[in-house]
Parts: sequence; C-alpha cells; structure tokens
Amino acid sequence: MTAATGEEPSPIVVIEEVDGGVVRVIRFNRPEARNAFNLALYEAVTDAINDAADEVGCHVVVLIGTGSSFSAGQDLKEMAALVTGEASPEAAKGFRGLLDAMQSFEKPLLAAVNGVGVGLGFTLLPHCDLVFMADDARLRVPFAELGVPPEAASSYMFPKTLGWQRAALLLFTGAWMTAPEAVDANLALAHFPGESLLAETLTVARTIAAMPLDALMASKRLLLATRNPEVTAARDREDAGFAKLLGSAANLAALDRFGTKSGP
Amino acid sequence: MTAATGEEPSPIVVIEEVDGGVVRVIRFNRPEARNAFNLALYEAVTDAINDAADEVGCHVVVLIGTGSSFSAGQDLKEMAALVTGEASPEAAKGFRGLLDAMQSFEKPLLAAVNGVGVGLGFTLLPHCDLVFMADDARLRVPFAELGVPPEAASSYMFPKTLGWQRAALLLFTGAWMTAPEAVDANLALAHFPGESLLAETLTVARTIAAMPLDALMASKRLLLATRNPEVTAARDREDAGFAKLLGSAANLAALDRFGTKSGP
Amino acid sequence: MTAATGEEPSPIVVIEEVDGGVVRVIRFNRPEARNAFNLALYEAVTDAINDAADEVGCHVVVLIGTGSSFSAGQDLKEMAALVTGEASPEAAKGFRGLLDAMQSFEKPLLAAVNGVGVGLGFTLLPHCDLVFMADDARLRVPFAELGVPPEAASSYMFPKTLGWQRAALLLFTGAWMTAPEAVDANLALAHFPGESLLAETLTVARTIAAMPLDALMASKRLLLATRNPEVTAARDREDAGFAKLLGSAANLAALDRFGTKSGP
Repeated sequence: MTAATGEEPSPIVVIEEVDGGVVRVIRFNRPEARNAFNLALYEAVTDAINDAADEVGCHVVVLIGTGSSFSAGQDLKEMAALVTGEASPEAAKGFRGLLDAMQSFEKPLLAAVNGVGVGLGFTLLPHCDLVFMADDARLRVPFAELGVPPEAASSYMFPKTLGWQRAALLLFTGAWMTAPEAVDANLALAHFPGESLLAETLTVARTIAAMPLDALMASKRLLLATRNPEVTAARDREDAGFAKLLGSAANLAALDRFGTKSGP
Repeated sequence: MTAATGEEPSPIVVIEEVDGGVVRVIRFNRPEARNAFNLALYEAVTDAINDAADEVGCHVVVLIGTGSSFSAGQDLKEMAALVTGEASPEAAKGFRGLLDAMQSFEKPLLAAVNGVGVGLGFTLLPHCDLVFMADDARLRVPFAELGVPPEAASSYMFPKTLGWQRAALLLFTGAWMTAPEAVDANLALAHFPGESLLAETLTVARTIAAMPLDALMASKRLLLATRNPEVTAARDREDAGFAKLLGSAANLAALDRFGTKSGP
Repeated sequence: MTAATGEEPSPIVVIEEVDGGVVRVIRFNRPEARNAFNLALYEAVTDAINDAADEVGCHVVVLIGTGSSFSAGQDLKEMAALVTGEASPEAAKGFRGLLDAMQSFEKPLLAAVNGVGVGLGFTLLPHCDLVFMADDARLRVPFAELGVPPEAASSYMFPKTLGWQRAALLLFTGAWMTAPEAVDANLALAHFPGESLLAETLTVARTIAAMPLDALMASKRLLLATRNPEVTAARDREDAGFAKLLGSAANLAALDRFGTKSGP
C-alpha cells in the first residue's frame, strides 16, 4: 500500500490532516510486520498523539492501520529480546509512553479498526472514545497462551467495557471477537465495509470537530477523570504481574512456539 | 392539558396520589416552556421529592411531564441571566437542590418520559431507578454546542449507564437518542405508546409499592451507596468546569444563537 | 436422582474430576430441598472451592446443581431459626465463608445453571466468571417480599452486571429473569438445552484448562482486584442492613407465609 515503489522509506507513522487539520489521522504504517509495535512505532505514535494534543487547530484524532491489520500488538521479537536481556531498557518505555499519552489525551480519540487487532491492537481500543470497525476486522488477546497477564489496563477496561463474562472468556481463552460481536459488546459503535470505514469514521469526526474545542476538552477531561485513577492502578498491578511471568517456562515455550527467537 | 379552563393558574408541579398515596406522581407542569427548569420549577420538584421522602405512606414516586416534552432542561434564559449577572444567586441553587434531593431519595424513583428530554431532561434519567419512555420520546444533550461541560454527574452516569462509546458520542455531538436506542443502551427498561405510558409505568409502580417499605428503602439505600460518592465527585468536577466555561466566547455565541437574550 | 437406592447417604456435595482433574465439577447435591443452602451445604461447597484452589493440578472449577434446581438459596428454615435464636452462631458463618471463598478463588470459576436459582442461587452467579444456563432455567431474588435487603454483594454486583434499571427491577419486585433475559443482560454468556448444558460448559472449561495455570491465575487475580474492595464494602453494608431487618414485622410475616416455621 505504501512505499512500494518510492526510494524514500515510508515513515512508520503517516499523519494526514483533514479539513485543514481539525481532524488528524494517525496511521500505523508498518504493514510488513502487521503494524506490530516495536520501539520505533511506539515512539512515533506517542509523538503523534502528543503533537495533536498540543496543536490548538486539531479537535479530533483518528487512529488507523495500513494494510490488512490494525495492529498485531507488541512485537514478539522485542518481547523475546526483553526476556534474554538483549533489548535496551528503552523497549518497555515505548509501551508505557504510548499508554500515558492515550490516558492523558484530552481531545476526542477515534479508532478505525481496518483489520486484525491482536494484543495491544485490541487492548488500546477501550482507551479510544469511539471505535468503528471494518466488517471483517477481528480481535483477540493471546495473553494466556503466551503465559503473561493482561496489559494496557485491560484487566480493568475489559470487564468495564465488555462485561465480566466476555472479558473473562477473551482473557482466559484468547478467542476471536468479530466486528458484530464487538458492536454487540459495546466495544465498537458500528462496523462498515472496509472500503468505506475511514470515510464513515471521518463523517463522525467532522461532526465532533465542529464543536468548540474548549467544550470538547472539558467533556473529555471529565470523562477521563471517572476512570483514570483505576486505569493507572490496573496498569501498575499488571506491570508487576508481567515482571513475574515474563521469562517463565510457559512464556519461553510460547515465544519459541510463535517462532520469535530474537538475536542473531 | 391542564388549567385550560380554570381561573386559578395551574401549579408548576402537579402531585397525583395513586392507590391512596403509596404511589405518588410528580408532574412537571410548565408546558408553555416545554417544562424547562427555571428556579420555580427546580424548587417545586425538589420540594415534591423531599415531601415524598418524608411521607411514610408513600412507597414509590413517578416523574412525568405535561404536554409533548418531558423537560427541555435548564431554562436557557436563566442560563443567560447567570452569565450577565442578572440572575439571583438562588438560580444555581435550584439545580443543585434538585440533584441533592434525587441523590438522597431512598425510595424507588420511576420516570415516565412522555416526550422530548433535552439537557437536564435527559441527564436526570440515570438518577431514576426505572425509566419508561413513550415510543416517540427522544433525548439529547447540547452541552458541546452550548460551549459548556456535562452536568448532573452525566460525565460519570453516561459512561456507566450507556457505555463509554455511546456516552462519548452523545456528549461530543449532541445527537438525538430515540426510545428504542435508549432501551438498547440500558437507559430505559421499555417504551410504550404515549397514551399507555403512564398506565404501564403505574403497573410497575404498584407492584413495587406492594413490598414492605423498610425493605425497599434498604435496597435503594444500598444501591445508592455504590455510586453516590462518585456522583458527588463528578458533580464537583463538572461545577468547576461549568464555572470556567459559562460566559466563554463559544457559550455566549451559542446563547445568542439559541435566541435566549435575557433581560427586558 | 441421587441416593434413591443406595445404602450410603449421598454426599451433600459431589466432586467430579474431568480430564484427570484439570477441570473440577462441584455439584450441589441436596435435591430434596432444591439445593437450598443450609449450614452443611455452605460448608461443603466452601471446602470444595478451597480444595480446588489448593490443588495445583486443577485449573478450572464448574458449579452445578442436582435435579431441577440450581439452588433455592438460603434455607428459610435456617433463616427463621436465626430469628428465634434457635440457630447456632455458626449458621451465619456458613454464608460468609462461602462468599469469602468465592471472592478469593483465583482460578476460572464457571457456573452451569441447570434450573431454578433463587436468592443466593442467583446472587452467587455474578461472582462466577462464566455462566451458562439451561434454556428453561430462571432466576429471582425475593428479598423485598421477605422484608430483608439484598445480600452477597448483589447491591453492587447487580447494577454493575445487569445495569441499574434491571437491577432495580429485580431487587424491588422479585420478578423472574429467564435464561434469554440473563444472556441479554450480560449475566450469562449463553443458554443450552438442559441435556447438553454440562457438556457445553465443559467444552469451554477444557479450552481454558489448556492454558498455563500461572497465566490464568494472574488474569483472574487482576480481574478480582478491580472489584474485590467494592464487593467487600457492599457485603459489609448489606450485613448491617440485614441485622436491622431480620426479625422485623415484615420479615416475620413473610417467613410465616413461606411456611418456614422452624423448630420441632
């Protein structure tokens, strides 16, 4: 889709301004790795969100991915490198920085889930205000089979958003959730054919962007205030659990099985 | 509907006792202003709720409106008068007093939404225990376009009741929610043809009223305890945000646009 | 169904191990009293849950009842004996011990609701992670008509799980909830013909049991951490309310009406 013929390497995140910039689209652009989050992608998305927060002309942000995936989540090669100590200490910071940016983003944040979302490609969605999905998009969290606990506050956000039962099913089994199921479960507002997904999302984004920024930000700030303390607490608990289980026998076996040996 | 032929002015709130008073209907009766809340209506409804709380023979209360509106919400002429300083300091107390009364009302509280609910005509519904709507009733909150933040703890109650996505959509865009959508979103239990709405609501009210008052009040008290601290915290945050944005450029422009110039 | 012809009395709880014990089925086995919880059943179920927690080979637990009832809830004869002082001080401990065990059970807990669930036979379900129901199973809580407040943290779990409106309706009226309604209300994940209920539940249980125990327990622990403080607070408030209303005029009249005179 991108950079197929050009000489310049395609940037890992593509920013598109809509209607003079009142709506900003942030596109995960690492399709060769199904938009998995490596350190470079974490940092580029984080910067893009923080820039949109600072830009007074920008009222609304839309997240989307290039290609057939929304995001494959945490890059498992980088997870394996964390286990072996080959990863730089920066690696885990990328993940935390992105979540911090989302948690403190005080403007409406939309997601257009263009395709498969796995792990963080799923767990970042409840941090968005409005989620729209392609008809054939689907989502899952393989934490249990990877031998690690939930992340990105999903231990709090999943039961809160999907209800305890669906949250438990997804977290315990790693089952796929389809777009209609996501709408039924209040994770997404609607699903559309893939070719009209972005246009439909932008229609809503424009309606929102027409509102006074101060009022939008006041609303978003008040909404965030109702959950941010619990989101932060859940992240802290999850991080502690992750530190315990990363590199456990089950985790090592899973990383092997997923074919993610890192290093030379 | 009321006071059409009488000489006496129709009271701004009409109280009806059902079955000897075990069910009490409190009717917003300012149809000429679509039951918008001015100071007089705030105080009359607050008094009616507090009286029902004190009356040992009353087990259940039903709120309804006269005419084609449930309530148009905060009277915008009074909001404009708050901006210019023409309003008495009592004006804002009316709003707070009503919410205090609803938050501390320890008996089952039902709403029969007979028609349009806007602003507080929508945001007071999640404070009711059971909501029934007329088939053609519909609801919206125009806070963003008015340049003000959410109120009546809706920044907490909307995501809690409707889910984050629908709450964000309604708060950011001011979109209408229809009766079937409200039932689907767990804001209302059922909708009925307008002409049978009150009768259907009273059927449920009577079933509840047949229960021992002590047990009903114990249940309601326990339910309120699970959310009142967060409702109060949300109201405090909202009030602070409202104080900042009332009279802002966007708010003044909106009040002008809505044709609500106050004063002579 | 049980112990009809044998000489040995059938145990009040039957434990079945599935797939070498990775799944453990705990069966309430007091069908002659519709699996109502008397002290013996409380203690046997509590012990069975605690044993499953301790057994490293057990990954998943399933609760089910023998006969046409899941559980009729608190044994009303024992409640009546509490009122008259004929009950041992142990009686109330049985109830608390079971809830403590469920609240601290850090493995996936499933329920197969084979038939009618009343009172605690309903209120223990939101403490389970995944609930499956027989097509004709149905649930209700008769607290109001018994003149007592909600129990088992249902004043918190019902609004959280079912939404405020449905919670209020069930708690105030004691209305029945059918299996399809329970699925619609996010209390249960699915319903099946009674004859396949256990098999369907075990299919899900086996999928979960295939996951590494450490990761399952980390997930469950993180999920519990998001609600256990509020569950405990709700139970404390409910216990205080129960102490006030047990033996009240309405409660005594109801116990009489239910034909539960205790004693010889």
